[in-house]
Amino acid sequence: MSEIPQKPFFSHIISLRVRYCETDQMGTFYNSRALEWFECGRTELLRAAGVCYAKLEEDGFFLPVIEAFVKYLNKARYDDLLEVKTSMFMEGRARIKMQVDISHRESQKPVVSGYTIHIFTNRSGRPIKPPQFFYEVFRIRN
Amino acid sequence: MSEIPQKPFFSHIISLRVRYCETDQMGTFYNSRALEWFECGRTELLRAAGVCYAKLEEDGFFLPVIEAFVKYLNKARYDDLLEVKTSMFMEGRARIKMQVDISHRESQKPVVSGYTIHIFTNRSGRPIKPPQFFYEVFRIRN
Amino acid sequence: MSEIPQKPFFSHIISLRVRYCETDQMGTFYNSRALEWFECGRTELLRAAGVCYAKLEEDGFFLPVIEAFVKYLNKARYDDLLEVKTSMFMEGRARIKMQVDISHRESQKPVVSGYTIHIFTNRSGRPIKPPQFFYEVFRIRN
Amino acid sequence: MSEIPQKPFFSHIISLRVRYCETDQMGTFYNSRALEWFECGRTELLRAAGVCYAKLEEDGFFLPVIEAFVKYLNKARYDDLLEVKTSMFMEGRARIKMQVDISHRESQKPVVSGYTIHIFTNRSGRPIKPPQFFYEVFRIRN
Repeated sequence: MSEIPQKPFFSHIISLRVRYCETDQMGTFYNSRALEWFECGRTELLRAAGVCYAKLEEDGFFLPVIEAFVKYLNKARYDDLLEVKTSMFMEGRARIKMQVDISHRESQKPVVSGYTIHIFTNRSGRPIKPPQFFYEVFRIRN
Repeated sequence: MSEIPQKPFFSHIISLRVRYCETDQMGTFYNSRALEWFECGRTELLRAAGVCYAKLEEDGFFLPVIEAFVKYLNKARYDDLLEVKTSMFMEGRARIKMQVDISHRESQKPVVSGYTIHIFTNRSGRPIKPPQFFYEVFRIRN
Repeated sequence: MSEIPQKPFFSHIISLRVRYCETDQMGTFYNSRALEWFECGRTELLRAAGVCYAKLEEDGFFLPVIEAFVKYLNKARYDDLLEVKTSMFMEGRARIKMQVDISHRESQKPVVSGYTIHIFTNRSGRPIKPPQFFYEVFRIRN
Repeated sequence: MSEIPQKPFFSHIISLRVRYCETDQMGTFYNSRALEWFECGRTELLRAAGVCYAKLEEDGFFLPVIEAFVKYLNKARYDDLLEVKTSMFMEGRARIKMQVDISHRESQKPVVSGYTIHIFTNRSGRPIKPPQFFYEVFRIRN
């Protein structure tokens, strides 16, 4: 699709430590935790852009995940300090893609890389258009 | 308190296997998982008594945990088959105590033992009286 | 690749109920839980084929997830009874693909669909060949 | 017991935000998450005292939870900023008690309060004496 932007609308980096409860008996993080870290990354990306996702839901706008992809590249152990880089793209005018790259903060060795795709829905799960201010915040041509 | 019953109103046993995602790098289950197994036990105790907790919430009755206690007695590893025995007590007329004993199903070696205490609330979290049928199901003198 | 089989080597169906701890404030299951259900599906697929994954790890063979993909198709709520259908494919001679389709058991309405890709590694995470019996169990030409 | 100290050996405060994955359909955090936040608190308490728990495990000293207690006092919602205050006590010479009080950071409204009790074990789970430096770090009379 020609409308897909070449550059992200917004990128943001956070740090987090692997919690003990996120490890499994293989000694690294359990695979599903990556999606929870993706969530931390996008919450803070939105906040950095001026959008409080908790407020968005209060106003009746929800951003459920409709697709997720994760590539597991290297181990990360309990207490390791990770860097989560999230980049937001629009796919067309209603789908949001959050590309996430997680790496060890010091060595920059990659840990996981992937994305989630989101659509806006109302409280009952029906797809709706993004709120007007969302276009403005991210300077998307409406 | 003299009203505290000596015998549970209802007891129920279920089996479950330790999931890989419930382990941690110590090689046993992560401590917080016990509370999730307690939840499985009380959902099925209520169902066995004829009370569907999902339906209860739809009808506006909620049973949040207000207190939890767990003693960790022995390890349980990934794929171990456990037995969860839940016993329901009333404390006074509004507090429910769910006593839970989890053991290895075959050896009966104890794994954890503890309890959760619950009160009935409405959707906004305000304490309310149990629904009438609740007294009837459990043959509690109202 | 011409070696990729058209048919799965093995398929298996299990049932599970959505736990309360797997829901989130959107009222459906939290997105990362799907990967935990995928794990339940593949553990039981392997067991049905005669392979105990816990035993496999004791013997020094690990099957970490190296890639995961999930499409979220419909809601599933607390206490909903789901059906998890897992199909195992070999990609070449060392990569295992577990295709998973989760649906509501009664209505067969799809909930999530996706896959995980696994390789065999030793205890320290180095890729190794599958154990000989693995080829035999699944009647894979070695 | 007269040996129980009246004052904690060490106290430490951290902040954390409620993650979306930690909520449940009641709209507040799921009860077992409290124990995961307790873990965050004690990891950072130990680090602040100069003890890296990850290093402790590498050296063969483990601190499993043998008992946990939680009182749920008030709701905390997704994205709420919480303060986790952890205080370490010794019970006798081998049991460690981590008292935890979690409150809303701004309003100081309490959220949960409780404790975990830990003993030192070796890798195979057998109780052992704390490492010598542990007594020194916390200036405990050995």
